[in-house]
Amino acid sequence: MSREEFFEKLSVQTETKIVLVVLDGLGGLPLEGKTELETAATPNLDKLAADSELGQTFPVGIGITPGSGPAHLSLFGYDPLRYDIGRGILEALGVGVQVGAGEVTSRGNFATLSDGLITDRRAGRISSEHNQRLIGKLSAEIREIQGVKITLHPGEEHRFVLVLQGKDLDDSISDADPGTVAKALPIAEPLRESAGKTAAVVNEFIDRAIKVLKECQPANAVLLRGFAKPPDIPTISELYKLRPAALATYPMYRGLARLVGMTVLEAGQTVFDEVAALKKHYHEYDYFFLHVKKTDSYGEDGNFAAKVKVIEEFDSVLPDILALKPDVLAITGDHSTPALLSGHSWHPNPLLVHSPYVRCRASESRLFNEYSCANGVLGSFLAMELMPLLLANTLKLKKYGA
Amino acid sequence: MSREEFFEKLSVQTETKIVLVVLDGLGGLPLEGKTELETAATPNLDKLAADSELGQTFPVGIGITPGSGPAHLSLFGYDPLRYDIGRGILEALGVGVQVGAGEVTSRGNFATLSDGLITDRRAGRISSEHNQRLIGKLSAEIREIQGVKITLHPGEEHRFVLVLQGKDLDDSISDADPGTVAKALPIAEPLRESAGKTAAVVNEFIDRAIKVLKECQPANAVLLRGFAKPPDIPTISELYKLRPAALATYPMYRGLARLVGMTVLEAGQTVFDEVAALKKHYHEYDYFFLHVKKTDSYGEDGNFAAKVKVIEEFDSVLPDILALKPDVLAITGDHSTPALLSGHSWHPNPLLVHSPYVRCRASESRLFNEYSCANGVLGSFLAMELMPLLLANTLKLKKYGA
Repeated sequence: MSREEFFEKLSVQTETKIVLVVLDGLGGLPLEGKTELETAATPNLDKLAADSELGQTFPVGIGITPGSGPAHLSLFGYDPLRYDIGRGILEALGVGVQVGAGEVTSRGNFATLSDGLITDRRAGRISSEHNQRLIGKLSAEIREIQGVKITLHPGEEHRFVLVLQGKDLDDSISDADPGTVAKALPIAEPLRESAGKTAAVVNEFIDRAIKVLKECQPANAVLLRGFAKPPDIPTISELYKLRPAALATYPMYRGLARLVGMTVLEAGQTVFDEVAALKKHYHEYDYFFLHVKKTDSYGEDGNFAAKVKVIEEFDSVLPDILALKPDVLAITGDHSTPALLSGHSWHPNPLLVHSPYVRCRASESRLFNEYSCANGVLGSFLAMELMPLLLANTLKLKKYGA
Repeated sequence: MSREEFFEKLSVQTETKIVLVVLDGLGGLPLEGKTELETAATPNLDKLAADSELGQTFPVGIGITPGSGPAHLSLFGYDPLRYDIGRGILEALGVGVQVGAGEVTSRGNFATLSDGLITDRRAGRISSEHNQRLIGKLSAEIREIQGVKITLHPGEEHRFVLVLQGKDLDDSISDADPGTVAKALPIAEPLRESAGKTAAVVNEFIDRAIKVLKECQPANAVLLRGFAKPPDIPTISELYKLRPAALATYPMYRGLARLVGMTVLEAGQTVFDEVAALKKHYHEYDYFFLHVKKTDSYGEDGNFAAKVKVIEEFDSVLPDILALKPDVLAITGDHSTPALLSGHSWHPNPLLVHSPYVRCRASESRLFNEYSCANGVLGSFLAMELMPLLLANTLKLKKYGA
């Protein structure tokens, strides 16, 4: 029996509610003896820790530093080594583009073509406003090719996203991007027989785009790369019989949530907005993914103090979440982003699980940090096992075997 | 994607250095309340523990007592259940014989043949000197059979090792050894079609050896058993892009290291020699396996006090290793050998990992022993996951996924 079949068989729908808070890149490393989480003044988290089970999770495996895609899939209860999310999909998610099953997406650049050679792969970094006008022009002229619907989404500066919707699309085609300047624009080549149609559509799109952009120098050509289909992934509802909703301020995380079938709620710009949205929709769903981005952003910047402040800000809203009395509240990271490393790292995620069925007295230190979590009663385990633990604590998993 | 493909994809070569110290059979059991490691006065290990991450590893799995082969393969980052090292190979490694890919080796005995029956399987335990003379005689007379090169290596008393080098060799042949006395010497039978040639070569070797040894009673026959090829195993360089070197005083560990592609350095006879060799070659490699044998030997002898002394001796050279400032220093065992059991056991290995990226405060007890390691922040995991952890701590693994 596959993991998927196992949980489809055991899970049941109930009225109990799960709130999963992900402080992105939460785990840290000590600077002057203390990590970001140890440094932050977190009276509410610490009080909760004393009445919760603590542990730590590995996003993918011991020693493995994950990107945001696999790190979140794990937290949502998926094997991150089984489901691979292509770069083009993450880019599309990052600019808020929805990509449906069977659709092919790619990253695009406006570029400068001169005498048959690419002379600037970023078209002089045109403004985002100019980009939007050009996308409008292209979208009006090119709506469909060989029965395939063409959709274009402007990004920042010279970047855009192309989405192809139609039958028999296959993402196994080579990049239509020389990757460097002073070279001709290569055509997209099918990398397997079944990708012939997709390559033909892409090449015709490029030909027509170049005609439309003829007078638009420096943005008179397009480069396309990273063709990808969304992974063939069962939804959280299919797997775990949940009615899931996402509260996230950044497009990529909203996209990742949508990819696994969550309803993405309007969550504003701040953690205060997110908690307000959680309250507003609390009775409509039974699984909430609440994502806090800036712990990771400041970790990536190497800004220890600012990361500490984001943790403290979250601590200040925790009582509002607790006031909703969720049956299970889990607070964790997706991966570690120590300011010391200015990037993602392989260190495990601190984890707190609060429910009526925890063994309590889990944290004798009465603190929530990497150290107390490493010594917590939950031990160390793979992040993809968190979902079953949360389902168990909300009595959403039947007994296995008689 | 296999484990091997996964790490081949993620690993990168860097200038950072890993030193892995294996105190063979390190883990113990309490005698009068304390284990060997707890009893030993280890000021340097304890000081290092206070500034390191601690944990414990299972060589193969919970409850599994491993031999030296699988225990070391795990530490080198291989799945010990996937790669099986035949007994003949370990014997050959044990007497310092190199066995290359495709070669077949077997264990041999000088024996006494009388009226067509084996009357002594050990030829009256002839002296090792006598053995060497006989091997010299046989080697001079039998150099090649059917295009297969024959090499013989004398061992202790009546034991020797046979190595066959040539094309199309297959180790699936039955033992040419009755296993008991008062029986005829059986011929080697091919256990599958492709082993016909190897069986024929072995049987011709035995016929010719008996002719050469005609006047050498009691050692007038040879018995061969445990035919084996070295496992088809990728090297550490292929898998992890390391330039690995081994420092080990015992032949079997030098052989195990060679099997996974390490350069085996001249390491003398003592741990002091080994550390001197480490210093001498420190700039030539980026992964060092430093093996200390006698913790295991004395454990096997049930000599608690002597095992304690070996640990203390290692503690005394630790500052010299630290003086090299390795980017990562890991200190652990391959398996436990409690003096109480006079043999290998299933207990996990204490593990200490020192690097710039540890969360520290790992050992509040400020001690390195089985108990502090069982409570360490690294938790409990399979020994084969140690390699990824060491690669991560030397920044030798790329991020997985975007």
